[in-house]
Amino acid sequence: MTTFHEAAVFPRGFSCASRNCGIKATGRDLSLFVSEVDAAAAAVFTRNHFPGAPILLGRETIRGGVLRAVIVNSRVSNVGTGAEGLANARRMAAAAAGEVRCDAGRVLVSSTGVIGLPLPIDRIEAGVRGMSADLQSDPLVGAEGIMTTDTYPKAVSLSVGDATITAVAKGSGMIAPDMATMLVYIFTDARIPAARLDVLLRAAVDRTFNMLSVDTDTSTSDTCAILANGLAGDVDETAFADALHALCERMTELLARDGEGATKLLRVRVRGAATDEDARVVARSIVDSPLIKTMAYGADPNVGRVLMAIGKCFDARIEPARTAAWINGVQVIVHGGRAHFDEESLRASLAGDPVEIEVDLGVGTAHARAWGCDLTEGYVQENAAYYSS
Amino acid sequence: MTTFHEAAVFPRGFSCASRNCGIKATGRDLSLFVSEVDAAAAAVFTRNHFPGAPILLGRETIRGGVLRAVIVNSRVSNVGTGAEGLANARRMAAAAAGEVRCDAGRVLVSSTGVIGLPLPIDRIEAGVRGMSADLQSDPLVGAEGIMTTDTYPKAVSLSVGDATITAVAKGSGMIAPDMATMLVYIFTDARIPAARLDVLLRAAVDRTFNMLSVDTDTSTSDTCAILANGLAGDVDETAFADALHALCERMTELLARDGEGATKLLRVRVRGAATDEDARVVARSIVDSPLIKTMAYGADPNVGRVLMAIGKCFDARIEPARTAAWINGVQVIVHGGRAHFDEESLRASLAGDPVEIEVDLGVGTAHARAWGCDLTEGYVQENAAYYSS
Repeated sequence: MTTFHEAAVFPRGFSCASRNCGIKATGRDLSLFVSEVDAAAAAVFTRNHFPGAPILLGRETIRGGVLRAVIVNSRVSNVGTGAEGLANARRMAAAAAGEVRCDAGRVLVSSTGVIGLPLPIDRIEAGVRGMSADLQSDPLVGAEGIMTTDTYPKAVSLSVGDATITAVAKGSGMIAPDMATMLVYIFTDARIPAARLDVLLRAAVDRTFNMLSVDTDTSTSDTCAILANGLAGDVDETAFADALHALCERMTELLARDGEGATKLLRVRVRGAATDEDARVVARSIVDSPLIKTMAYGADPNVGRVLMAIGKCFDARIEPARTAAWINGVQVIVHGGRAHFDEESLRASLAGDPVEIEVDLGVGTAHARAWGCDLTEGYVQENAAYYSS
Repeated sequence: MTTFHEAAVFPRGFSCASRNCGIKATGRDLSLFVSEVDAAAAAVFTRNHFPGAPILLGRETIRGGVLRAVIVNSRVSNVGTGAEGLANARRMAAAAAGEVRCDAGRVLVSSTGVIGLPLPIDRIEAGVRGMSADLQSDPLVGAEGIMTTDTYPKAVSLSVGDATITAVAKGSGMIAPDMATMLVYIFTDARIPAARLDVLLRAAVDRTFNMLSVDTDTSTSDTCAILANGLAGDVDETAFADALHALCERMTELLARDGEGATKLLRVRVRGAATDEDARVVARSIVDSPLIKTMAYGADPNVGRVLMAIGKCFDARIEPARTAAWINGVQVIVHGGRAHFDEESLRASLAGDPVEIEVDLGVGTAHARAWGCDLTEGYVQENAAYYSS
């Protein structure tokens, strides 16, 4: 079984630093992640039609398959900023490359925050200077500088053979499945060529981050990158793939649970679907539904909403008489209708965290999982004033 | 130009009654609409895979193309109730038919409210008795008995030639475009055969109710029916179609504005799209986006979110450099980037109601409109306790 480290640590050869460079009034807003040797690398980026300048540059950079550093600022996303935005992203890569002493083509750049504002590149250039002197071994330090509305920094790590895999991420809002969602950086000292990393990363992302939705909105900055510096040598690829999947799944749950305003994690499993796509669509429909999300928030045993959310998947094969569902292990739907269950004990169980919804469509063998969070007044409040606050 | 009546009135030969029959603790929960002669009729129903028993019965009933009455209860939707639910829907039709003295096959039944609870059919049967003595001419009386979380009863009417068209509706939550959304009953004394009514109704619904989204969730009870009793004789079909469209659009705006917890109406126009489908998808993406909805609620000029919502329409033809957008007439996006505009005046205008978002995709001539509302703490609060309250 996969065992996560109690506190996240970096694999051999990786380190990070973060600081406030003046984009946020207070708090760290700039993070640098460094591998002391070249790392094979792969990445997946947002499919939004208005990708940020860092995404445009990142797609170019990742073609080389090698990274030495990742530089990330928070608060301003450098999206919708045209040619000047792209030039600023290149300046940001060059600044980090100068500090780390590598080629700018080996630096991945990310920016996250408000869309449409110019990147304060002068502050970033000044901020990067001297950061290599601060490099140290706690991944949480780097995680702190990339936060926007996250309530705490996120890093997890585990071992696979002699190697370590560590993920650092930020999430919170504008998060919907359809790509590598949000910003996630995965570091490992295993030796794996870039082409294989790409395959392994896409497989893991597809079943984890791509099945996460906080609010159905898809960021223009989403990035998930993996850097493998090889310092631990070769590892068994199957074991590595399993560990990578477990790591991504754990991080997906952390991001869902810390969704904007969230008070609880939603875990959905769908089985018995006719096709993989049907299973995924139904699982997403449930985690995306505002009425399911508010039911979880209010611990209101309004289980008919599960039927509604399954039934609105118009193109999926749904046979009402074969449909069953469970909430926290209590069967609430049987043969497409309400099951007999003790309402008060369901209400009590809904008040807990997480809320697990299981669906059996009864028409096939395909299955899928999805993750989300409840919808609360806090989500509304944060997003009614995000720009101005 | 279309002129709506200041107060809604019924066309010749239509009347209604409503009362409390004991399903709700207080307030009217049962409405009866009657035509004194047979009316040609058409209807569209939800595409949800778990249609309520009244929908199953209604699909059968509407095949006859003739209605004399509509009977509707609120608070319990008779969805997910199996064979017993269908038997109860038939008993409800029979009860109304007995009261109105017509064939049960000429009664349309609707139920709206919580999913999965048994229909209190005994109370409904007892409640229907004697209702024909209460029939009177104010459509709002009927509108009142079908409300769930609506904050006021909704009826509008207008004239077309010598005829009148009147719509009575309820909306509020679990409302997303993909069919006739919510419950809408349209009455007219124009003489139009059922087959033409069906064509005209589908055309109007497709551009109005189907482009309305309160919360992206699709009800299991959605019904939109039209009854034409012919007492005003023939009317020009083009004029009738235009009037019907105007009526549906007005009602769509009333339903959007009174969405659960809403404080303002969102109107979205998309033009310059490559295809009708692209225009519709982009318009819906904007009205559906929780981040656009909270921006409107908070009057927060976070206009980059408009780019995000357009850009997440992965399958639409979007060319960033050709994309432009306006909020309340102020250009906020130009060539796919943020335009120069006065932020404080936009903030002031966003504080008003409605909020109008216009998008020009710049790649074709197709266009579409969509309607929605803001997302507020009120939506969360209503839906976190709807079942139990």
